[in-house]
Amino acid sequence: MVNPFFKNHGPFNISEILIKLNLKTKESNNNLKVIDIKDLQNSKANEITFFHSKKYKLAANNTKASFCITNENLQNELPKSCIPIIVDNVLVSTSIITAKFYPDSINDDFDTTVEEITNTKLNGKVKYGRNVLIGQNVSIGSNCLIGHNTIIEKNVSIGDNCTIGSNTIVRNSLIKNNVKILDNCIIGKHGFGFFPTQNKNLRYPHMGIVIIEDNCEIGCSSTIDRGSMSNTTIGKNTYLDNQIHIAHNVRIGENAIIAGQVGIAGSSIIGNNVKIGGQAGISGHLKIGNNVEIAGGSGVIKDIPDNTKVMGYPAKNIRDFLRENR
Amino acid sequence: MVNPFFKNHGPFNISEILIKLNLKTKESNNNLKVIDIKDLQNSKANEITFFHSKKYKLAANNTKASFCITNENLQNELPKSCIPIIVDNVLVSTSIITAKFYPDSINDDFDTTVEEITNTKLNGKVKYGRNVLIGQNVSIGSNCLIGHNTIIEKNVSIGDNCTIGSNTIVRNSLIKNNVKILDNCIIGKHGFGFFPTQNKNLRYPHMGIVIIEDNCEIGCSSTIDRGSMSNTTIGKNTYLDNQIHIAHNVRIGENAIIAGQVGIAGSSIIGNNVKIGGQAGISGHLKIGNNVEIAGGSGVIKDIPDNTKVMGYPAKNIRDFLRENR
Amino acid sequence: MVNPFFKNHGPFNISEILIKLNLKTKESNNNLKVIDIKDLQNSKANEITFFHSKKYKLAANNTKASFCITNENLQNELPKSCIPIIVDNVLVSTSIITAKFYPDSINDDFDTTVEEITNTKLNGKVKYGRNVLIGQNVSIGSNCLIGHNTIIEKNVSIGDNCTIGSNTIVRNSLIKNNVKILDNCIIGKHGFGFFPTQNKNLRYPHMGIVIIEDNCEIGCSSTIDRGSMSNTTIGKNTYLDNQIHIAHNVRIGENAIIAGQVGIAGSSIIGNNVKIGGQAGISGHLKIGNNVEIAGGSGVIKDIPDNTKVMGYPAKNIRDFLRENR
Repeated sequence: MVNPFFKNHGPFNISEILIKLNLKTKESNNNLKVIDIKDLQNSKANEITFFHSKKYKLAANNTKASFCITNENLQNELPKSCIPIIVDNVLVSTSIITAKFYPDSINDDFDTTVEEITNTKLNGKVKYGRNVLIGQNVSIGSNCLIGHNTIIEKNVSIGDNCTIGSNTIVRNSLIKNNVKILDNCIIGKHGFGFFPTQNKNLRYPHMGIVIIEDNCEIGCSSTIDRGSMSNTTIGKNTYLDNQIHIAHNVRIGENAIIAGQVGIAGSSIIGNNVKIGGQAGISGHLKIGNNVEIAGGSGVIKDIPDNTKVMGYPAKNIRDFLRENR
Repeated sequence: MVNPFFKNHGPFNISEILIKLNLKTKESNNNLKVIDIKDLQNSKANEITFFHSKKYKLAANNTKASFCITNENLQNELPKSCIPIIVDNVLVSTSIITAKFYPDSINDDFDTTVEEITNTKLNGKVKYGRNVLIGQNVSIGSNCLIGHNTIIEKNVSIGDNCTIGSNTIVRNSLIKNNVKILDNCIIGKHGFGFFPTQNKNLRYPHMGIVIIEDNCEIGCSSTIDRGSMSNTTIGKNTYLDNQIHIAHNVRIGENAIIAGQVGIAGSSIIGNNVKIGGQAGISGHLKIGNNVEIAGGSGVIKDIPDNTKVMGYPAKNIRDFLRENR
Repeated sequence: MVNPFFKNHGPFNISEILIKLNLKTKESNNNLKVIDIKDLQNSKANEITFFHSKKYKLAANNTKASFCITNENLQNELPKSCIPIIVDNVLVSTSIITAKFYPDSINDDFDTTVEEITNTKLNGKVKYGRNVLIGQNVSIGSNCLIGHNTIIEKNVSIGDNCTIGSNTIVRNSLIKNNVKILDNCIIGKHGFGFFPTQNKNLRYPHMGIVIIEDNCEIGCSSTIDRGSMSNTTIGKNTYLDNQIHIAHNVRIGENAIIAGQVGIAGSSIIGNNVKIGGQAGISGHLKIGNNVEIAGGSGVIKDIPDNTKVMGYPAKNIRDFLRENR
């Protein structure tokens, strides 16, 4: 995962991690170092991962992690090289340990590090409007414009020839070249990810970022949330219209054309050359193929193969939909 | 109705009220005082109410109000203790009289009372960003954050440990403790309530407020309108995602989870522990029970009983919907 | 087309236009002046137009233009008075020539001409909040209010008794009298119009404006895009709720009532006295008659005749829809 922004505060001794989870430590293991926390597929030796659902059994069987937060029922799926850490609620415990490694990925409060752009090193390099604020760890390439009242909060890298509109807020984002982000957008906030409880939901960390590739355009009043364990990415030359919501961990391919008020729920993956009509919605954790066309107003609730045109709610083959709805 | 903000300019003599409606006054009643205006159920002796549709016949039969704005056909439903005031258009007349009692509830122009927070008594108490403006009659508890360019307009009470994002505007709202309102929200504006006429619609007063209970989170770019005759309320530990619209008089229970781009039309009541998927819409004046789950993209046009899962447009039992749409 | 804002940089010799398109010039015509570029119906002698689809054959047969950008297959539909200019991609070439006549209609970067309102001639005439910015070529009538952080960018005319909320951005718009635009709106940006290509989409010019007639109200967080070759217009006394998106070239009649989160795609025409429920969507290039009612959540994909009530997706007669969905 490309992630230049969130600092890993590890390594930690495994004993520290167990204490944080109110678990007893076995003395023999106390000094083992844990370097990082990642998902089942991407974790390596001396890292910790988590396994909370049978859906991920195959990945669990093959994980390279040295430790895995999991429960009684699932622990036997792990390889011998991976020590299970048995907890009551896997996701809550994972959240706690992720926050230990990446404490900055939970806090989405307003950025107190900002300065007026006039007082930063960007003065003279960037063309900017009134009341523009710039946070720490922001870099901006050549020939860029930043509109009035816009805030580039901490942890943002912007390439060359980019235009950011007015009243827009960006944080934790990697914006490549020739990108236009129009007015009133919010880019890089944490997603709608938390563990529901009866009295006080528990937010989990969002250590992913938003990546917007070359030549994209993001319409007015759109929101693009950053990822939790992976990044939210918008592929090259993809154009978004106004009032679009892209949830955390979504990956959109190249050359997509997405009309107004579309919403894409968390972790869905959209292929290349996809066209999505206005107000269409795509559920979470889906895979939409290349060259797919989704008619405006459709509600997509299952994967769509390449080169397919769909319409309706639930979305189906467009010819079937139109025949049934003559 | 909890309403610490809109000042009642009454009492008025009934004669003043009749004159305002261009009605003749009966001399014997001229000096009767009218203390307040409320709906049929909540009004008491020496108050005025209104009755415009047979739907509310039962409430009319039992009203405690001393006066009621109504029409020829409906007047006989009122108890003897309630003097009917016969007009051509009940809602327009009600609007005129409500505006007489609560003149400040019509005007939603920008707040001219604001000061830069640095110049207010909140300086030193609240942690705030650049260009924060605070209106009259605003109180904020301990350990709160207010982001850049945010405007807390007049008539707002914020509890302890709250975070208001950047570019957000709040007015006429009661925000309890541990609440997070993210960036770019508009909270507490009047709702979409007016009497349509051919040339110039007539707005009616919105004397309700927005109440957000403890531990809630409101996502970026959401709008929550204040109530007209009652309050708009968001129950404890309810989480709203981005780009959500909550219309006036809506009441949402505790522990709701409401995904992106959902819209809830005016006066609907949502129970506790309700989950609503992205882009779902709920029509006005509906009652959604406790523990209801509404699938993303659904359009709900009738009441939903407790413990029900629905999907589709119009929303129906989710199993029926999925079977019919295989 | 009413268009007081975009300056025509013509006339140009036809030879200059042909060179811009990398076409050879016939020497005999070199000095013919071309005054303007318009669509097939509105162009006159000594003007240039474009013809890219058989759909517009009738208009092509009758065009008064002296020149027409078109292709091999379509050229024979033009009258003898109109000289065809044969190109590979009609729309791309049209875009290039339109940009030559109206170069300012492509650039939607933030307005660098703005001044703080305090330093403009509007100081003392208009009642305004903090941090209000005013661009060049802005006029505002008597008795108007402009809220905090609002930017009236260049090329805006506002009539009398208008209220613009806070955090709103307006450009390229003609706003008549007694209009209210609430907080957080973006009015007059270019629409979602461009020619898709694999590597870098080509935006086409938007030389239309937004016209908002008398007595309208535009809800919070709405976006209204200006037109490309025609204007986007909102008729008298039309009320829009929050979070509405009106795409480019849309024309809405008088007395419309449009509820929250509605989206209207490009170039659709809506009649008078139309009611549209929340979250409804209307596809592009449709004609919705007078006195039409569209139920909330509907998806309209074909023309709707006068005096019709529709519901569903695709929207159909409301009685049919409700009968089929009991």
